[in-house]
Amino acid sequence: MSRQHTIHKHHHHFTWDNKIPPIYEAENGDSIWIETIDSSGGQLSTHSTIQDVKNMDFNKVNPVSGPVYIKGAKPGDTLEVEVQDFGSRSWGWTAIIPGFGLLQEEFNDPFLKIWELSNDGHAEFLHGIEVPVHPFPGTIGVALPEPGAYSVVPPRKNGGNMDVRHLTKGAKLYLPVWVEGALFSVGDTHAAQGDGEVCGTAIEAPMDIQVKFRLHKNKTIAEPQMYIPGPLKSEGDERGFHVTTGYGESLMDASKKAVSYMIEHLTREYGLKDAEAYALCSVAVDLKIGEIVDVPHFLVTAFLPKSLFN
Amino acid sequence: MSRQHTIHKHHHHFTWDNKIPPIYEAENGDSIWIETIDSSGGQLSTHSTIQDVKNMDFNKVNPVSGPVYIKGAKPGDTLEVEVQDFGSRSWGWTAIIPGFGLLQEEFNDPFLKIWELSNDGHAEFLHGIEVPVHPFPGTIGVALPEPGAYSVVPPRKNGGNMDVRHLTKGAKLYLPVWVEGALFSVGDTHAAQGDGEVCGTAIEAPMDIQVKFRLHKNKTIAEPQMYIPGPLKSEGDERGFHVTTGYGESLMDASKKAVSYMIEHLTREYGLKDAEAYALCSVAVDLKIGEIVDVPHFLVTAFLPKSLFN
Repeated sequence: MSRQHTIHKHHHHFTWDNKIPPIYEAENGDSIWIETIDSSGGQLSTHSTIQDVKNMDFNKVNPVSGPVYIKGAKPGDTLEVEVQDFGSRSWGWTAIIPGFGLLQEEFNDPFLKIWELSNDGHAEFLHGIEVPVHPFPGTIGVALPEPGAYSVVPPRKNGGNMDVRHLTKGAKLYLPVWVEGALFSVGDTHAAQGDGEVCGTAIEAPMDIQVKFRLHKNKTIAEPQMYIPGPLKSEGDERGFHVTTGYGESLMDASKKAVSYMIEHLTREYGLKDAEAYALCSVAVDLKIGEIVDVPHFLVTAFLPKSLFN
Repeated sequence: MSRQHTIHKHHHHFTWDNKIPPIYEAENGDSIWIETIDSSGGQLSTHSTIQDVKNMDFNKVNPVSGPVYIKGAKPGDTLEVEVQDFGSRSWGWTAIIPGFGLLQEEFNDPFLKIWELSNDGHAEFLHGIEVPVHPFPGTIGVALPEPGAYSVVPPRKNGGNMDVRHLTKGAKLYLPVWVEGALFSVGDTHAAQGDGEVCGTAIEAPMDIQVKFRLHKNKTIAEPQMYIPGPLKSEGDERGFHVTTGYGESLMDASKKAVSYMIEHLTREYGLKDAEAYALCSVAVDLKIGEIVDVPHFLVTAFLPKSLFN
C-alpha cells in the first residue's frame, strides 16, 4: 500500500486545547499515517536506567500527534477512526513510577523494563516469559468544546487516554465531535497491555499508526464507542487462565486486592520479584468486573493467561 | 458416568453460618452431584408474572444446597472444586427487581423474562436475539470462620455469591478453608450472564451440578482463585463486539455510564425497550476495566457480542 499523507511527530501537543491550530486538513474517507512519540515524550530510550524514571519531567509526558482537521465535521457528528495498521517498532519500556499506579502505596521504588520488540508476535519479559504483542494507541481523541488546556492524562468525553487495549488493527473508534473539524490527535502507542494497565504503564513503544476517517453526520454519542473485531486477543488462548478475585465495598478496593493476590501468585509460582510481577500484570493481566450488584460487596477478577509461560 | 452421591435440594440454607450441620461427608477426591433451587428460592415459575416479582420475599432468595463436610479439611488449607458437569434445565428467568441492580435509580418498574432452555447452545431472548448458554454456579463457597449468620447475597472471603460467569464446565475454583471440614455449599445456578450481572439477575435456572473435591493441604489463599479454561466463552466469537465506554472519578460511575450508553445503543439500533436492553446487558454484555490508573478518571468498557443478533 502506498503511504498517503504522513503527520510528522514534531507536530505534537501535551494538552487538549481547541485553540491549537490543526497541522493538516483531512477529507472524509482519507487514510493517513501518523508518527508518534512514546509516552515519556522521548525522555526514555533503550539505554535508560531507573535513575531516568526518577528524573522524568511530568510536563513532557503523553504527547499526542496532531491535531488533524476533518473537513465537514461539526459538533453533534460522530467521527469514525479505523485503526488500519502500525509501522515497525524496535523497542519499548514499562515502568513503575513512584506516586502513580494502582498499588502506589506498596510500590515506592522505581522500576524499569526495556523491551526488545520486533514485528512478530511476542516480546520477552524474562527468560521463559513472553508477552504477545498487539499494538494499539493508548491515547486517541478529539478537541474538547470547553475553552482552555486540559491534561492529556485522564480520559474524557473526547476520548483521550482511554488505554483500551482492544483497539488493535481492524478496530473502529467512534468519537463524538465537539468542535468544528473535530481536531483529532493520537499518541501513546502501546505494544501490549492488560485491561486495567495496573502499574500505570504498558509496553510503551513509539510507532507509526495508520488511521482512516469516516464522518457520520448528525449521529450523536455522549462518549466514545468502538467496534472491536473478534475473537478478542489473548481471551482466545487455549491454555486457559489463572484467576484471582477480590471483593470489596468499592470496585477500586476489589481491584487492588485481586491484583495483590495475582502478584503473590506470580512471585510464589514463578519466582518473580514483586515489582516484576506488578509490571507483568500491567502488560498482560486483564481486570474484569465479576459482579457489580451484590451489595455491599462487588467482585473484580484478574485473568492471567497461562500462555505467557513457556 | 454413573452418578455417585447426590445432595437433594431440600438440604439448603440461606445464610453462611458455620453452625449449620453438614448433610454429607465427602472424601478428598470425591465427585458428587448437587441439586439446586433457583435464586428466587422457588418463588418464581414458568407461569410467573411481574406481580410475582413485586411480591418476592427477600428472606427466601439465593438458597444454597449443602453444606458438605470435606474430610481432612482444616483452616489454612485450600479446597479445589472442579466444575465437572451440569444436569438438564428446562427454564430460567431474568428479572429487574425495583431497588436492586446497577441502574436502580432509572429502572423503577419490575420486569420479568421467562426463558425456555434446552440443553443445546442458545436461548431466545426475543425473535432474532439468542443468548449463548454456558451454565455456571453464581453462588459457591464454604463456611466463614466468624460465628453467626451472614447473608448469602454479597460475596466474601469464603466465596459465595461471586457471580463469575467463567466458572463453567471444566473450570476449577480454589476456596480458602476457614473451618474444619470446609462446609461447602452451592446454588444460584445461571444459564448465562455477562461480566457484571448489571441488572442484578442472570438467566436464573435451577439445575444439578457435579463437582469434584480436591484438598490442597497447607496451601493458604486469602480469597478465592480459579483456573478457567480457554478460550473464554463469547470472547472467542468471530463476529466481534460493539463497545461502549464510560469514564468517571469512580469505577462505579464509569460502569453506570457505559451500561447506560449500551442500553441507548440497543434501543436505537435494535428497537429494544429500555428494560429489555438492560436485561440483555445483564445476561450477555461484559464489563471490563479499561484503565484504573489515569487519575482522576477511570474507564470501563461494556462489550456486546454481535453474534447475539441473527
